[in-house]
Amino acid sequence: MVPLLTAEVFSAETTARLQKVADVPDLEPLTTFEEPRAHVLLPKTEILLTGWGCSPVDSKVLDLAANLRAIVHAAGTVKQHITEACWDKGILVTSAAAANALPVAEYTLAAILFANKRAFPIQRRYAEVREFRWWPMEFPGLGNYAKVIGIVGASFVGRRVIELLQPFDFDIVVYDPFLDENDARKLGVRKVELPELMRISDVVSLHAPALPETHEMISREMLSLMKSGATIINTARGWIVDGSALTEEVVSGRIYAVIDTTEPEILPGDSPLYDLPNVFLTPHIAGAMGSETQRLGEMAVDEIERYARGEAFRYAIRREDLGRLA
Amino acid sequence: MVPLLTAEVFSAETTARLQKVADVPDLEPLTTFEEPRAHVLLPKTEILLTGWGCSPVDSKVLDLAANLRAIVHAAGTVKQHITEACWDKGILVTSAAAANALPVAEYTLAAILFANKRAFPIQRRYAEVREFRWWPMEFPGLGNYAKVIGIVGASFVGRRVIELLQPFDFDIVVYDPFLDENDARKLGVRKVELPELMRISDVVSLHAPALPETHEMISREMLSLMKSGATIINTARGWIVDGSALTEEVVSGRIYAVIDTTEPEILPGDSPLYDLPNVFLTPHIAGAMGSETQRLGEMAVDEIERYARGEAFRYAIRREDLGRLA
Repeated sequence: MVPLLTAEVFSAETTARLQKVADVPDLEPLTTFEEPRAHVLLPKTEILLTGWGCSPVDSKVLDLAANLRAIVHAAGTVKQHITEACWDKGILVTSAAAANALPVAEYTLAAILFANKRAFPIQRRYAEVREFRWWPMEFPGLGNYAKVIGIVGASFVGRRVIELLQPFDFDIVVYDPFLDENDARKLGVRKVELPELMRISDVVSLHAPALPETHEMISREMLSLMKSGATIINTARGWIVDGSALTEEVVSGRIYAVIDTTEPEILPGDSPLYDLPNVFLTPHIAGAMGSETQRLGEMAVDEIERYARGEAFRYAIRREDLGRLA
Repeated sequence: MVPLLTAEVFSAETTARLQKVADVPDLEPLTTFEEPRAHVLLPKTEILLTGWGCSPVDSKVLDLAANLRAIVHAAGTVKQHITEACWDKGILVTSAAAANALPVAEYTLAAILFANKRAFPIQRRYAEVREFRWWPMEFPGLGNYAKVIGIVGASFVGRRVIELLQPFDFDIVVYDPFLDENDARKLGVRKVELPELMRISDVVSLHAPALPETHEMISREMLSLMKSGATIINTARGWIVDGSALTEEVVSGRIYAVIDTTEPEILPGDSPLYDLPNVFLTPHIAGAMGSETQRLGEMAVDEIERYARGEAFRYAIRREDLGRLA
């Protein structure tokens, strides 16, 4: 993994836990599988602990790591480094995607509460006018009460958002083709099709993975179904939204947006999204960042402890799950 | 109450509930107790339903309302209109302060999550630089993980904030001279003195009432105890903070602030708080506003239903409580 991140993801405490449960021949992470140390370390490796920036674990690496049983990823997606060869060899795989989901859900919760409160545009408008206004008149739809929240994707993040929304006076609807009625009931939400979700929601929050099938699933047509004054929140991926259509909708002022993920990741300097009063734009900060990254290391070590006790991984990833995971 | 607000506070549904449980001789609110209708309506009034803008219920009013038993206030504080004469006569008093507490706590929760995430200054900085930055480096202390949240005042709002903070990885400390160790344990928080709270908290959130004793309780000295990079949130009253000292602290950039209440209510046009990147300033919007005001009417009618069933008010206010209530 990227060495700079190691200290951030693995606190002294987490590292001590790791050393207690496992034999760690070298605390300095490998940055590639080509460096000389790899040839010494890989043959005796039973568990490979990986992180952001890990190179693909291909058949060449696997040939060298003849004793490898499991790959524990102290980060989100495993799609960058787990190859077909890993699955073919029956290597066990797990990741800290669930830990990464927590801060994204927390950002989303704050965004929903402030979006309904019109806090972002009111903050800007107050700085302009510097006088008393009757804000609910100036910003219709204001209020965290009796609002419909539409969750697109019952992923780790989507489910955590649903959990966090329980204490509030909201109706929650969910669109997810993999969610059955029974699951929806257990989550305490109503399952709807995407067009209905877009039509009835005061806030639409996106938590679907970036897959070939989800490319621009939030299309121009879907965006046009949104109520005037509704808010779209994207903490997932720019990939899943028609970016030009979204830009047109917010430039017109018809809807609000809280956007943490865009395509490209850094928007061109002349994008209107940077300045619009109805858009709160942040540079992909919702995921684990700063102190939050420590959870990734902790969750990875939790999994290694389970392995050492002979238990199954709690967040085991199977080859057949990849088609619906981020 | 102010007529403009009546329709906002009392939805058609709430009004129907009220009419079912009580005889409502006139749905049009009185705006003063001097108008001719008052002389017709007051003598037969058993319950006076009041709201924002109600004039003091003095002995002249009470003489006219010889059958008055209870005053139900569909808003927060009762200090503007409940006089000594009401208490002397043994009039029962209740208010919807608890309903008003919900949106304030919700605003506060969003503010805490975004403050720890540095979302407000990052949003502004990203709009300036429009390029990739290593944000945790530029904004140290970033992250909603292992943070200490200091709650000043275990009021309705303070308690609701504590409840809402349960799903997150925070340590919560509380300062409230009226809170005993037993209550603190039940709330799952640690009771500390104010200076310690100011010193150890990553976020200090103010929920104390405006009383003579709380005037500028968050003094220059208390503010100076805050950690660099910590955030102060004020959704209570400007009254309880030394405004010049707070302004100096945020102008220096040493701390962050989310401020919804100031003294005066609308800051002078040349206040630096309007523009600072480390201050998120809103114009007293945290309390019930827009759709949220409907809860006030609902809670008032809940209380009237209890009265009709011969039950005690759930949120009864006694004369001796006033010294610690907002």
